[in-house]
Amino acid sequence: MATHAALRANKPLVQCLTNVVSSNFMANVLLSAGASPAMVDNPEEAAQFARIAGAVLVNLGTPTAAQVESMRLAVASAHEAGRPWVLDPIGAGGLAWRGSVAAQLLEFKPAVIRGNASEIIGLAGLGSTSRGFDTSNDPAEAVPAAIELLSHASAVSASGPIDHVVGWVANGTDEPRPWLIKIAGGSAWLPRVTASGCSLGALVAAYTAVASDALTAVTAAHVHFALAAELAEATATGPGSFAAAFIDGLDAVDAFLITTKARFEAAPV
Amino acid sequence: MATHAALRANKPLVQCLTNVVSSNFMANVLLSAGASPAMVDNPEEAAQFARIAGAVLVNLGTPTAAQVESMRLAVASAHEAGRPWVLDPIGAGGLAWRGSVAAQLLEFKPAVIRGNASEIIGLAGLGSTSRGFDTSNDPAEAVPAAIELLSHASAVSASGPIDHVVGWVANGTDEPRPWLIKIAGGSAWLPRVTASGCSLGALVAAYTAVASDALTAVTAAHVHFALAAELAEATATGPGSFAAAFIDGLDAVDAFLITTKARFEAAPV
Amino acid sequence: MATHAALRANKPLVQCLTNVVSSNFMANVLLSAGASPAMVDNPEEAAQFARIAGAVLVNLGTPTAAQVESMRLAVASAHEAGRPWVLDPIGAGGLAWRGSVAAQLLEFKPAVIRGNASEIIGLAGLGSTSRGFDTSNDPAEAVPAAIELLSHASAVSASGPIDHVVGWVANGTDEPRPWLIKIAGGSAWLPRVTASGCSLGALVAAYTAVASDALTAVTAAHVHFALAAELAEATATGPGSFAAAFIDGLDAVDAFLITTKARFEAAPV
Repeated sequence: MATHAALRANKPLVQCLTNVVSSNFMANVLLSAGASPAMVDNPEEAAQFARIAGAVLVNLGTPTAAQVESMRLAVASAHEAGRPWVLDPIGAGGLAWRGSVAAQLLEFKPAVIRGNASEIIGLAGLGSTSRGFDTSNDPAEAVPAAIELLSHASAVSASGPIDHVVGWVANGTDEPRPWLIKIAGGSAWLPRVTASGCSLGALVAAYTAVASDALTAVTAAHVHFALAAELAEATATGPGSFAAAFIDGLDAVDAFLITTKARFEAAPV
Repeated sequence: MATHAALRANKPLVQCLTNVVSSNFMANVLLSAGASPAMVDNPEEAAQFARIAGAVLVNLGTPTAAQVESMRLAVASAHEAGRPWVLDPIGAGGLAWRGSVAAQLLEFKPAVIRGNASEIIGLAGLGSTSRGFDTSNDPAEAVPAAIELLSHASAVSASGPIDHVVGWVANGTDEPRPWLIKIAGGSAWLPRVTASGCSLGALVAAYTAVASDALTAVTAAHVHFALAAELAEATATGPGSFAAAFIDGLDAVDAFLITTKARFEAAPV
Repeated sequence: MATHAALRANKPLVQCLTNVVSSNFMANVLLSAGASPAMVDNPEEAAQFARIAGAVLVNLGTPTAAQVESMRLAVASAHEAGRPWVLDPIGAGGLAWRGSVAAQLLEFKPAVIRGNASEIIGLAGLGSTSRGFDTSNDPAEAVPAAIELLSHASAVSASGPIDHVVGWVANGTDEPRPWLIKIAGGSAWLPRVTASGCSLGALVAAYTAVASDALTAVTAAHVHFALAAELAEATATGPGSFAAAFIDGLDAVDAFLITTKARFEAAPV
């Protein structure tokens, strides 16, 4: 709730290096939720811009050679400047080239890795037989893979009917240990709208720019997203009207809704 | 109707190499109709992906040198693997470079060529004086050009107020001969929504992945498209509300609507 | 009003070399308003197409090296053929590479430069400290910078809550002198929809293809845009429903609305 207020107050600038299918919808998701999108993804400017952005999103949906170079420059620059960045490894488990790209990017320590269950499993087991674009896995099945990926990132999210997020939690003087947060809600229409998952990754990036830690950022983003989808479902008559209503919903979600409607549970793994 | 049921049951994976204007809308059209879009169009992955896709769409709307290379790799791979692919030759009759690209792609035998009347005429008469982006021709005028193009493809579609589709039909032991199918319906709002024609091409590709033959695939796709547009027109108040309602309509079209509302006629040419 | 009638009668072909975020929305804005979009932006075809287009839009939102080469070719071709073109210098004041690109493009004399206040200030003072993506400046603050840019263009527009446009006006035998036109209206939802400003630039380009002079074109485009936004605001419940209703509104704006609702004032500077 405090994190949501921080998003609205700060309107963080989010640099998105993303696939062509998602760019318009993603920008509208960020604008409506309360952030400022900027899709600067050429090699000439990517590093310079990453230093002024509040956070960086890297989405591997439709990479080109030039965009991949920009991704490397942007995350190196973000890493150096201490800016959080988020990796959305679409297809990295199933297509050889982007698998190797993802492996290289992981060296620059994303704050968050976000994908659907199959993508998280695919990323953790690069070189395995996963198709990579498959969405048949349940998020709960991805938890071991997500925990494995915590060696690279502060939090890892596998989204689905019930989102499963793992991340490091420091409690007083104890060693940080991984927690699992399960977030319910959303709508069955969401996966019927292209780039909805990609846009969730961008919203996670926006929240990393204002949250106290990565796990809080992911949770706040997923809750915001799920509540907007529930608002939209109440009026939608199909995937097209749902998409427009969902954008309306991202704007409408407020502190009262979050307090009364958010559904999630957290526990140490 | 059986073809529509096959689409819904199989949710074919459609690889789209398409123009930037269309990618988001096209992906939503495919998702809403019941297929699975994947816009993999870089040279590093295009061939690999074409082997696992159910069908491939190639749309020449905004080609880049890298994308054209990907198109060649994807259709060669699809051709070799026996996967159907669809060519949408936007502007190929009017712009020299993409005309030569289209001519090269034709060697890999698309299952279907889909365009508006001027594009079909332009593609058949490469080197002629057609502007290529002109949409002033009536689909009926494109029938001779479409028949000519049957030396390259199993079916050719010229869409417009009444879509005209020609394709090879084998009847028992007779030599296959060309038939003409005319499909009525749709909405005057459709050409006011950008990428609607492009998205029809993608839906045709989706149907080629599940239909018994190319002509059946084209007919089923055009009927599905036209009925969705009629549903949308009933509630739309302009091109923006129409576009959202059309996406809803693609999801809503079912066997009952197809049986009771589809309007088309077929005859040997 | 006469300019609006000319747009509807001529449906000018507008070549857009624009950022990936904007391409779909921009094309729908042009189609709905009454123009014909074509996003031809590869180096192989950009110059050829600029000779048949009614006007050219160049938007620096997400430039790539290849697209920048296309921009140079297109505006050189347009300049030579006497076609008007419009420059939308997104980020040119804040990012070094695109600043130098913008400076080179200015040599080919755009009919109109259109941006938000910060972009106009940034473009006039290339090399200054402006962030370039900042939208905090008020359009009134941009007027001196806009007047300075009249050495490169016939009209310069800084859009915002009240759009401020300057341009050369020739009155009888007097030397042309700059006038300032202020256009009120629009909606607070507009900046919450991504690519709305970019699309205004495209609509300006469409109007330059049919208007008697650049200042008239800009004014007509801004009025058309503002009235469509007002229509949309009456039914919208958030940025998503606003975007769809705004596209409907661009189609609905007619001579009667313009005559009765347009709000602007003009005076010599």
